[in-house]
Amino acid sequence: MTAALPPRARASVRDVAAATGCSIATVSRVLNGDARVAASTRTLVLEALDRLGPAAPIARGHAGPDLGPVFVRCPYLLTDYFGLIVTAIADELASRNRPMLLDAGESSQSRHPLGRLPMRAETAGAILVLPPEHPDELARLARQGFPFVIVDPRTDPPAGAVVVSAAHHDGASALTSHLVSLGHRRIGVIAGPTEWLVSRERLTGHAAALGTVDLRQDPALVLSVPPTMSEGFVAARRLLSLPDRPTALVCFNDKVAVGALRAAGSLGLQVPADVSVAGFDDNDLSAAATPGLTTVRQPLEEMGRVAVERLLRVVAREESEPGRVELATTLVVRGSTGPTAR
Amino acid sequence: MTAALPPRARASVRDVAAATGCSIATVSRVLNGDARVAASTRTLVLEALDRLGPAAPIARGHAGPDLGPVFVRCPYLLTDYFGLIVTAIADELASRNRPMLLDAGESSQSRHPLGRLPMRAETAGAILVLPPEHPDELARLARQGFPFVIVDPRTDPPAGAVVVSAAHHDGASALTSHLVSLGHRRIGVIAGPTEWLVSRERLTGHAAALGTVDLRQDPALVLSVPPTMSEGFVAARRLLSLPDRPTALVCFNDKVAVGALRAAGSLGLQVPADVSVAGFDDNDLSAAATPGLTTVRQPLEEMGRVAVERLLRVVAREESEPGRVELATTLVVRGSTGPTAR
Repeated sequence: MTAALPPRARASVRDVAAATGCSIATVSRVLNGDARVAASTRTLVLEALDRLGPAAPIARGHAGPDLGPVFVRCPYLLTDYFGLIVTAIADELASRNRPMLLDAGESSQSRHPLGRLPMRAETAGAILVLPPEHPDELARLARQGFPFVIVDPRTDPPAGAVVVSAAHHDGASALTSHLVSLGHRRIGVIAGPTEWLVSRERLTGHAAALGTVDLRQDPALVLSVPPTMSEGFVAARRLLSLPDRPTALVCFNDKVAVGALRAAGSLGLQVPADVSVAGFDDNDLSAAATPGLTTVRQPLEEMGRVAVERLLRVVAREESEPGRVELATTLVVRGSTGPTAR
Repeated sequence: MTAALPPRARASVRDVAAATGCSIATVSRVLNGDARVAASTRTLVLEALDRLGPAAPIARGHAGPDLGPVFVRCPYLLTDYFGLIVTAIADELASRNRPMLLDAGESSQSRHPLGRLPMRAETAGAILVLPPEHPDELARLARQGFPFVIVDPRTDPPAGAVVVSAAHHDGASALTSHLVSLGHRRIGVIAGPTEWLVSRERLTGHAAALGTVDLRQDPALVLSVPPTMSEGFVAARRLLSLPDRPTALVCFNDKVAVGALRAAGSLGLQVPADVSVAGFDDNDLSAAATPGLTTVRQPLEEMGRVAVERLLRVVAREESEPGRVELATTLVVRGSTGPTAR
């Protein structure tokens, strides 16, 4: 068959189908990496493509924005939290035959890729995970009509933006209700940075749960710190060294909570007998910690999948739905919380 | 300036430079998301591009394989281990202005994207992390002359392939030497699947360290299991329930080791007084475990960066260097290993 083609001319999918005895659909599937092809058939087609070399047909790909890649920006380390969101996005995009352009890593926070996105004609749209951009920059992208979805907005998202996040208010509220039901009344909070939207939403949820038993949060028991294990350790030591120390600590995430577990240990306090400790996220740490951490599971995989689904609806200009999707969290009770001794 | 252009014609970078008073190089940098542009200048250029709308110049991108995206395949969950490698690859590619096409997530193991790679004219090359592909498929890619680098090969890589990995043999050897120096002579091994190249390399390194004190591994103390926490728990219980149980356990990774710590606890054994436990990787778990895990740190970030560097040398057809790069590991001693009591 190669001989029948003029040199360097590109064969069509139809030519490959004829040469292999496969259907045109099957050859297209092999070209596009579709998993629904039997291994033997795939080998047959790939060998034919091998023989054709540069004359082989080109895989589908940059056929304009409706089939173009989706740009995913997650300017953080892809470990437990962000890595799970990005994996779910990758999975979902792949299942829809969409290439994914990834921009990730903390160094990316000093890059500014959004400005050029609307000028990349082949890019279908973008998913922005906890974007560090100034709201004005996100508003500009929205004004330009470039399709994008924000997962976990850091600040108030621009009007009309499509947003996917966990139900932070309800998650925090469920956690505090759990502590209140165990008898805790003096609850310390190691919160995230106050300028973060989720920090504020969680504090509101926490306050709502306290309100149901006519309690108000003592501001002296709230510290806002960057959410790391070492900052959690320092903040927890500070709260647990107070003359009238809290009987429970609600932490911004599981890393902070593991720091708090260590702080309790360093002060000779037993968890949960002397102090209960709770995290947020339910990452690998929470099950591995001793005692296991009571925490709030965020639906990270679902967040990634829903973000893709919503983005592709925007790209396809399908009927727009409410701008903000909040996905339910789950309270996970382990050994780090227990009844108050006092 | 917009008015001076015929409707829908595309402005050049030169036009934007003239309209803003910026240099052509600066406008190009903004278009390409380069971080070396002052925020005020960036705003100036972006606003000019905004005004131009569809007539704005297009960012660099698909200018053929020498500037095209790099395809990164990591068909696993992007958590601690794989997530850190992929983040480093993303960082390094971005610093070289290379777009990254990502294929990730466990579902990707049932996809077969490699066959079509050589047909995607715009893709510069590929980085394959622990590729699940049959060696024949990798050999085919090599034969086709498509540039790729394997990070962490699962099986023996095809001849001439460029490979980047940690020094598994030396890492395992250093760990076992540490246990031997603590007096351990009866060491159990919870290894990874025997068909994995790294499992075999580590067993060889382990045996080499035993050999220095004229010991041979007792095969009854070696179990090969899928590397998860629960499999580690089951395997460790089995080894620690033997009549003449091992005084130390060497585990395939930190997850398996955390399972082993729990198994010891469930049998009423103290770590390290009754049994020492060691992991591999040095992920977040190892510092969070109680006691902290002695482990071997893999240079994940360096592996990602070196993979990019090597791939781009292959793409640029620069002088080829030795096919396999082994990056040094670091023994990290924490509380989970100690002198043998017997």
